[in-house]
Amino acid sequence: MLANRLQVPARTIMTPGPVEVDPRVLQAMSSSILGQFDPSFTSLMNETMVQLRKVLQTENHWAFPVDGTSRAGIEAMLCSVIEEGDKVLIPSFGRFGGLLTEIAERCGAQIHLIHCEWGSVFDPQVIIEEMKKVRPKVVAMVHGDTSTGRMQPLEEIGKACREQDVLLIVDAVATVAGADVRTDEWNIDGLITGTQKCLSVPAGMAPLTYNDRIEAILQERKSIEKGLVSDSISANNSRKIRSNYLDLSQLQDYWSPARLNHHTEATTMLYGLYEGLRLILEEGLEERFERHRLNERALVKGIEAMGLSLFGDAEHKLPTVTCVNIPEGVDGDSVRSMLLDEFGIEIASSFGPLHGKIWRIGTMGYSCQQRNVLLTLASLEAVLLRHKVKLHVGEGVQAALDVYQNKERLSL
Amino acid sequence: MLANRLQVPARTIMTPGPVEVDPRVLQAMSSSILGQFDPSFTSLMNETMVQLRKVLQTENHWAFPVDGTSRAGIEAMLCSVIEEGDKVLIPSFGRFGGLLTEIAERCGAQIHLIHCEWGSVFDPQVIIEEMKKVRPKVVAMVHGDTSTGRMQPLEEIGKACREQDVLLIVDAVATVAGADVRTDEWNIDGLITGTQKCLSVPAGMAPLTYNDRIEAILQERKSIEKGLVSDSISANNSRKIRSNYLDLSQLQDYWSPARLNHHTEATTMLYGLYEGLRLILEEGLEERFERHRLNERALVKGIEAMGLSLFGDAEHKLPTVTCVNIPEGVDGDSVRSMLLDEFGIEIASSFGPLHGKIWRIGTMGYSCQQRNVLLTLASLEAVLLRHKVKLHVGEGVQAALDVYQNKERLSL
Repeated sequence: MLANRLQVPARTIMTPGPVEVDPRVLQAMSSSILGQFDPSFTSLMNETMVQLRKVLQTENHWAFPVDGTSRAGIEAMLCSVIEEGDKVLIPSFGRFGGLLTEIAERCGAQIHLIHCEWGSVFDPQVIIEEMKKVRPKVVAMVHGDTSTGRMQPLEEIGKACREQDVLLIVDAVATVAGADVRTDEWNIDGLITGTQKCLSVPAGMAPLTYNDRIEAILQERKSIEKGLVSDSISANNSRKIRSNYLDLSQLQDYWSPARLNHHTEATTMLYGLYEGLRLILEEGLEERFERHRLNERALVKGIEAMGLSLFGDAEHKLPTVTCVNIPEGVDGDSVRSMLLDEFGIEIASSFGPLHGKIWRIGTMGYSCQQRNVLLTLASLEAVLLRHKVKLHVGEGVQAALDVYQNKERLSL
Repeated sequence: MLANRLQVPARTIMTPGPVEVDPRVLQAMSSSILGQFDPSFTSLMNETMVQLRKVLQTENHWAFPVDGTSRAGIEAMLCSVIEEGDKVLIPSFGRFGGLLTEIAERCGAQIHLIHCEWGSVFDPQVIIEEMKKVRPKVVAMVHGDTSTGRMQPLEEIGKACREQDVLLIVDAVATVAGADVRTDEWNIDGLITGTQKCLSVPAGMAPLTYNDRIEAILQERKSIEKGLVSDSISANNSRKIRSNYLDLSQLQDYWSPARLNHHTEATTMLYGLYEGLRLILEEGLEERFERHRLNERALVKGIEAMGLSLFGDAEHKLPTVTCVNIPEGVDGDSVRSMLLDEFGIEIASSFGPLHGKIWRIGTMGYSCQQRNVLLTLASLEAVLLRHKVKLHVGEGVQAALDVYQNKERLSL
């Protein structure tokens, strides 16, 4: 029996990713295939690098996507930099600090893990003091952790890392193109993001960038792939990177004019990334951050006016994710299911200790728009009423509308 | 300055991949995004597994794509199975045997590499004798090596592996959906393919399958990801898989009803894979293999009638790639460039010792059609004439037409 034709129901996606994609990106992705060494394609690769540098706010030469989802980029960065026994300090404030730990551990790192309570972030001084004690080769940390909806200020940490000659590697998957991420100004040595959040491109690529401090390590650990030139086993580099697919030293050769054969670049995904970056730069980074702040403000005001409360330290709230406390006695998953099944709107639950405690509502990329925020508030109210939650009926949407209309008056 | 809108010139792609994609696949890929845990999406994941089993000719439960290009799938399989010091026998007959060696070496394998001359394949008895001497845990080999255009018969080798309790892992990237690949019947324990060749889906996914013999190893090496349940460092499994992104034990949990969070499945690529598999099964596997044989025959007859010669052992020719000897004194890359620039047709060069010696013409998936074969022959003739090559002018296309018209008469 043959499978049915693909059928995709309409959805409003208000999660921390994957989020909705601008139809112009999908149109670009329906273009026909080009060979990987076709000059039209290699120039597209080059132009993608140019655009990525701008979006990542860096002058680094190396800025390209890894062909895999966000964690492929994180692993590429960590496994290319970390060697067996290297000391890595990981200040973790959520589930994705756990992911960094998981990956660094598999790279053979000697890990120094510090925690802060979920819902808060670190006082940079705590990390700086810890660095002095541990003297790590690398500090690896998350910028915006979607699991708790917090954003860690990085500027002071970056400055201290540079002063102490420590490498700073940052997972900025949840923030790039939705909040300000200043790779160079904050002294970030290696930074990874993903396509399926504020870049608003389908999941499957992990754009990253790194500077010459990291490139120097790659050069030392480099080994040329067998079978490309001769098939004999070459002298073994004992510091060789453990992965072939995620070996940044080989990936950068493929993204250089040498175009040394590695994988076959994911043609259609690259079309999508190119177009997604183009739309971001057309909108303007500052304008885009402001759009994210505006919709976040409307959502937050709406949630609060409805009578719900927000989770976590307000000062360090991640602007692209809003964590809402699930009212006492309410089955959070039942609310989410009804939102999806009856209204076609998706919001997220959370991980580990926060599962069942909070909902997470994303406002990222193309999903981050007035219509989506208003429809989500209206629908969430209706679903909560069906779940017998006492609310300030009607007030959520009105409060959000106030934000949008005041904004309009301000800009007149 | 803003980048230009994406512009993709029309191409006829006659390489060993990436190849052209059926417009219906691109249409499916322009569908809007679904969340990764949306029931509409998880049921699409399940249906993709059902279709994959059929295309891979297996009853294995596990059959799913890795989100990365073909070598991501190869590395996932090898790094999940191979542990430090494991003996791996790699019979290599081309560049992609070299890639298996490269990856297995990084996994810490103790490698036993045997070669045969490029352009030929192994007598299975040679491999079977070597297995008896080496007593490896794994035999890893390529089914169809595009670098030399040869296809290795696997049936006897698979039988011997099972008898000697050795695992057989096969890179079938160049053959699945273009030539017969009988995973179960040939006793293949783990098999990897890629989307950008005969599956005719854009590059970026590596479908694979494995049986319970491999699953047993995964279960022993499994470690649960930190941060999913609790953030404390769990007891270390010393046999832990070195990669997180490519850890099949975690990937299978994500592809199971547990849906344990790992990466965010590449939404749009999965749409493409689903639709690509559907089109393959709609055509029928046998019918598809016959289409590949027919177009190969027409291409080969045309090339020979033109006065060119083929590279390698004819008996073991890979039906999806035809290697043509570059005539003495001709600059192969100049011919390829002129074909691309003037005619919009792409053929491939080769690697290492064969670069400059052969052209490789692919007939894979959607690119494998009469129109493409005829236009390639006509254009190649014209370009070779411009390069002052003596040919039997006009005869190449006529010979190919004869094949197609005889075929039509036969099927009347």
